[in-house]
Formats: sequence, structure tokens, C-alpha cells
Amino acid sequence: MNIIEENRKHFSYTLQHKDQNSQARAGEIITPHGKIPTPVFMPVGTHGAIKALPPSFLKPHNIQIILSNTYHLHLTPGADLIAKAGGLHRFMNWPGPILTDSGGFQVFSLQGRSLTEEGAIFKDAKGKDVLLGPEKSIEVQQKLGSDIMMAFDECIPHPATRQYTENSIARTHRWLKRCLKSWTQPEQSLFGIIQGSTYLDLRQRCVDEVCSLDLPGYAIGGVSVGEGHELMKKIVSHTAPLMPKNKPRYVMGVGTPEDLLMIWENGVDMSDCIIPTKYARGGTFYTNRGKIRIQHKNYRRDFFPIEPNCSCYTCKNFTRAYIKHLFDANEILGAILATIHNITWFQNLAAQAREAILENRFVEFKKNFLSEYQGR
Amino acid sequence: MNIIEENRKHFSYTLQHKDQNSQARAGEIITPHGKIPTPVFMPVGTHGAIKALPPSFLKPHNIQIILSNTYHLHLTPGADLIAKAGGLHRFMNWPGPILTDSGGFQVFSLQGRSLTEEGAIFKDAKGKDVLLGPEKSIEVQQKLGSDIMMAFDECIPHPATRQYTENSIARTHRWLKRCLKSWTQPEQSLFGIIQGSTYLDLRQRCVDEVCSLDLPGYAIGGVSVGEGHELMKKIVSHTAPLMPKNKPRYVMGVGTPEDLLMIWENGVDMSDCIIPTKYARGGTFYTNRGKIRIQHKNYRRDFFPIEPNCSCYTCKNFTRAYIKHLFDANEILGAILATIHNITWFQNLAAQAREAILENRFVEFKKNFLSEYQGR
Repeated sequence: MNIIEENRKHFSYTLQHKDQNSQARAGEIITPHGKIPTPVFMPVGTHGAIKALPPSFLKPHNIQIILSNTYHLHLTPGADLIAKAGGLHRFMNWPGPILTDSGGFQVFSLQGRSLTEEGAIFKDAKGKDVLLGPEKSIEVQQKLGSDIMMAFDECIPHPATRQYTENSIARTHRWLKRCLKSWTQPEQSLFGIIQGSTYLDLRQRCVDEVCSLDLPGYAIGGVSVGEGHELMKKIVSHTAPLMPKNKPRYVMGVGTPEDLLMIWENGVDMSDCIIPTKYARGGTFYTNRGKIRIQHKNYRRDFFPIEPNCSCYTCKNFTRAYIKHLFDANEILGAILATIHNITWFQNLAAQAREAILENRFVEFKKNFLSEYQGR
Repeated sequence: MNIIEENRKHFSYTLQHKDQNSQARAGEIITPHGKIPTPVFMPVGTHGAIKALPPSFLKPHNIQIILSNTYHLHLTPGADLIAKAGGLHRFMNWPGPILTDSGGFQVFSLQGRSLTEEGAIFKDAKGKDVLLGPEKSIEVQQKLGSDIMMAFDECIPHPATRQYTENSIARTHRWLKRCLKSWTQPEQSLFGIIQGSTYLDLRQRCVDEVCSLDLPGYAIGGVSVGEGHELMKKIVSHTAPLMPKNKPRYVMGVGTPEDLLMIWENGVDMSDCIIPTKYARGGTFYTNRGKIRIQHKNYRRDFFPIEPNCSCYTCKNFTRAYIKHLFDANEILGAILATIHNITWFQNLAAQAREAILENRFVEFKKNFLSEYQGR
């Protein structure tokens, strides 16, 4: 039995319902660390911690799965250390599912890195050369023990020429086969990544090549790289329907509420973004009526919660006036409370979208939501 | 019925047991927001928040009472705002007892403040003159709604001449009478403060004058101002036994575990200090074997909890290796976990001291504790 067959004992995706009026779908992913209803939004815990958040807040706020970064953990504290600690779940005390990226996105963003068929060579904090390529990325991700591992690929910058894109995707596909060869842990699931920049026929070519490998899941990469909402929509609405119906579809690095509703409408099941946690630390809160910046003087005497109907710890227990005071006084608690609210709000958005899909009213839900959200 | 008699319906101290071999005492304070077993250590929440800590962690870690700072809250967000929010307990969502200081300590530490019989005049962030004196301090504290209010006094710097001290304590006593006149809320309890610098006969004079007012409780002020452990011990061991047995005794701004054990041995019931929370944010953890600095390379592969027998959230769920990683990666979660552990550790120290007092073995407890703590 090969690794893909072995893996099926540990991982599955079930398409539960397709919305009658759009491509949107509701499903369930089963991983060794729990079930994930989809669509799902994944908060980011770069260094093995959601920034400013004790992990005890995750389960009570219905967080289903988190993302952590291979590049950062590879450098500090190192995958061997985390393996010795019993894997990333135990190390960070998060019992639920974890997806790790491949490190490719970070490595290719570095200045001074050099790129070969082997992978990318870059300098660590001490000036030592480090190679990150397909074999190393999978080795590290297997030591971390994530539920979902991402293949090592090049996230093509925007804009890119057709020639650059053709060369890049050819190499990404050679790398994918090397990732597959390196994959030995059947409890972990390897996802392939579909690149192709803005060239829809190259997206099609990538789907054909990548999805022929019958991997546990697939991602659309190389979006949310500065191409804007309309171009992202063009790529995702073209590519997602080409992907296998019986496998989860993940769009990497998305995004804003508008982008999320768009990718869900086009049949995407998973996504991740640093927006809710990063904005939280700056005092920006997501609400159904749009973003609010809590430092604004309007909130000085506002004794309502951030979002009156929200059931998160922050909204159940604190007023806008108090949270504004915390940010004004530079208290860390402000960032903590904002993070709790924002990740809850994004998870609630995904949960509401799922309900709407199950009831064939996703298009209406999206329209009503955006009307209230953007009306502010 | 005057305010002091009215207050007795809302506040009481019961001396439960005096240790047979020392002055140490176990007691219970009853406030409108709950009972406080003594001796007790109060963590500091300067701006109406324990730094880096969601208040939901306080009760589960047996925190009995917290201190908040009148000076800081007076400036931002202002006592009127907090009163409008329903008082400090509701504003910060802490249902337990709160003690507020008078603001005197902060005001007298400011450069450029001027001092008159009225009080102290200083400039706020906008350059506007602000007066803080006895009437204003009590007015602010009454708007905050703290369970225990401290009288506005001068915390005499160390060293101070006898003449300076005599003049200062005379004014502090005039101010105390003005504080008493301003006190109108019987649910809140006004504590008087005994100054006198290092002059034991002046400490006696202050006890005579201040305690003649029959206030709900008394503090020893003007220690922990750079005089060192031995001189602090001389002052506290002389002064505490002069104070009424049927009222709580509070030493302000103490301190280290060594200082705490010393003041408890001399019959003090309450104290506060920023040490556990401030050190936590720098990566210093208190353990029964002394302080550890988690950034040290020794902890890189240390998969034990900070304190193996500790029942705090941090020690139950995370290893030293993970916490070191959080500090190395500059993750806010490191400060959160350290704060939880340190305030729990200080509270546990007080709880263990109380148990020892109730069993007449405080002296032995102190000796054994310090032997392990300092042996490292």
C-alpha cells in the first residue's frame, strides 16, 4: 500500500452539500486531531503561537484549525527540538488540527536568497547558509507533525511574464514529485499547490498535472499577492471548478471578508490570513458593520460591546470604552481582547456561510452581509 | 451614625489566629466584593488591568484582591468616565476586591511638581496644571468605587532628616483629617498611613495620631524606598506591633519573597508590589528554588514545567522549552504565561504562609522556604 492509500485511513473530505445557486460548498474534513466543518478560516500562529492569545481561548471560540509557519519554526527553535517535545501540537498545547505551510513563500520573499533546482539557499540570523527545498521542507513538516503539510513550491510574484510562469510551474511540479517521495508519515496529509499566475490556461495545466497525483487536497497558490480582488476572482472562479470535487480546496493567504465570501462562492473550502490577528494588535476590530478603529475618540464614552450580538469573551465582558482605554494606555490586554474578538468574528463568518450553503441561500447571505458590512 | 460606624456594616477584619512563635497572624477581611484570607499579596493593575492578563485568569488562580492606581486612572481615562461605566470593578470586569492607592506616591515622584498645603500641583500630558490633594484623591477614589481607599499622604523619600520627617508627618496628619472629612461612601473603607521614615519614635508618634481615628485599617508607608531589607525590618518589626490588633495592617510596595516573609512574621496582613508582573514580562519566573531567567540557553531543551508542582495554567500546560521559545521569538504569549505563573506563585506563597501560621509553624516554614529558595 502506498503512502496515499495509507493516508486515507487518517484523513478524508466529505462534500456535504453544494449550494443550488453558486459553486459554494459545505463539507467536512476529518484529521487525526479532529473534524473541521468547511468552509473554514484558519488563524495564523507563525511561531507556534497565535500572537497575543493563550491557546485555551481557541476551543471555546470554535477555532477549528490553525496554520503555523515551517520557515519560522525551522529557524527557531528548530524542528528537531519540536519533535523531541512530542510534535507541534504538544509543544504549543493546541490539541486541534494544524496546517503547516512549506516555507517557500517566506524563502522566496527574502532578499539575497539564491534559487537552484535543489531549492532555495538563504542566510540565517547568524549568517549561515540554509537550504530549504522539497525534501527539507517535508522533513521539517513531518518533524512538526502537522495534520496538513503543503508542498514546497514557488509562489509566483505578481506580475509575472508567461515565460517566467511556464518555467516556474514546471519546476514546482518537479518539486512536487520530490515532496511526494519524501512523504513517509501517513497520519499527515500532503496538499499540492496550483500556481499559474494570471494565465488561465496555465492554471488549467497545473490542475491537470498536480491533481493527477491524487493527493489528499489541493491549494490555489499565487493569489493575494497584490493582484487585487477582481483578478483574484477571475483566477479563483476559473480554477476552483476545475479541481476535484472530492478533495478539499484551499486558497492560501486570503483574506478580507470580501475576498473570503468570493472564494467561498466559487467552491473553496479553506483559507488562512494574518489579517484578523495583525489588525487586532493595532486596535482594528471587525464588526458586521465594518472595521472599527477603537482608538477613535468616538469610543471614549461608548459602553457597548464591540459587537452587541457577539458571544466572544471580549464582547461578553468588556465595553468599547474600556478597550479604547487599554489601547490608549498601551496595555497588552487590549491586543489580547482584540485578537479574541477578531478570530471569533472570522470563524463566525465562516460558520454563517456554511449554514447559508446548507440552506441554499449563500448568494443572498453574501449580498446581505456585504450590504451591512460595507454600508458603514 | 458617622461614616466610620456606617462603614462597619460593609467591612471587617477578623484576627483568626496568631502564630505562637512569632508576630505572624492569619485573618480574614470582609469587603463588599468578597472575603480575603490574610496574609495576602495584591498584584498591581495600574491602569485598571493586570498587565498582560485577561481578568478571567484571576479567580481560577485564587487572586484575592488587586491594587489599582488612582494617579494613572485620574489622568486616563478619568474617574468620571469610570463612574459612568459603573465603577472600576465593572469597567475592568473584575468582581473581586480592589484597593486603590491615593496617587501621592506617583505625584511626589514627578519632576517639576510643586507642593503646598493644598496638595501637589503637576502638569498632565497636555501641559495643563492638575492638583491632587486629600479632597481630590478621595473624590477620585470614591468615583472609582474601590473597596479600600488609601489616605493622601507624602511617602517620605529615603534618606530624610528628622526635621523634614517631622514637618512631613504633621502635614500628612492634617491631610488625613481632610481625607476623613471627604469620605462619604460607607461601602468603601479609608485606610490611614503611618509614615515616620527611619525614626522609630516618629513611627510611634504616627501610630498614636493615625490610629486614634479608629479607621477601618492602617498601612505602614515609606518603606521599600531604597532603605534595604535590614532597615525595613527594623521599621516594620518596631511599628507593626504598635498598631491595633483588630485592624488590618498593610505594608505598601513590598516586595520580594524575603521581604514578604519578614513583614508577615512581624504581623503584617497585606502588601502589594509590581515585582511579579514586571519581572514576568522580562522573562523572569519565580520558583521555589529561586528566580529563573527563561531566556537562558539551559532551558532550550527543558521539557519540564516552570515549577513542577505548580497548578497554574502555565505550569499545567507548557514546558520551559516552549516558553523560552516564545520569549526568543518575542511572542506576547510569553509575557502572558509568565504573568499567570508569577502572580500564582506569590499568591501561593501567601496561602502557604497562612497555613503555617494557623498551625503555629510559621518560623519553621519561613526557614525551610528560604533555605530552598536561596539555595540555588
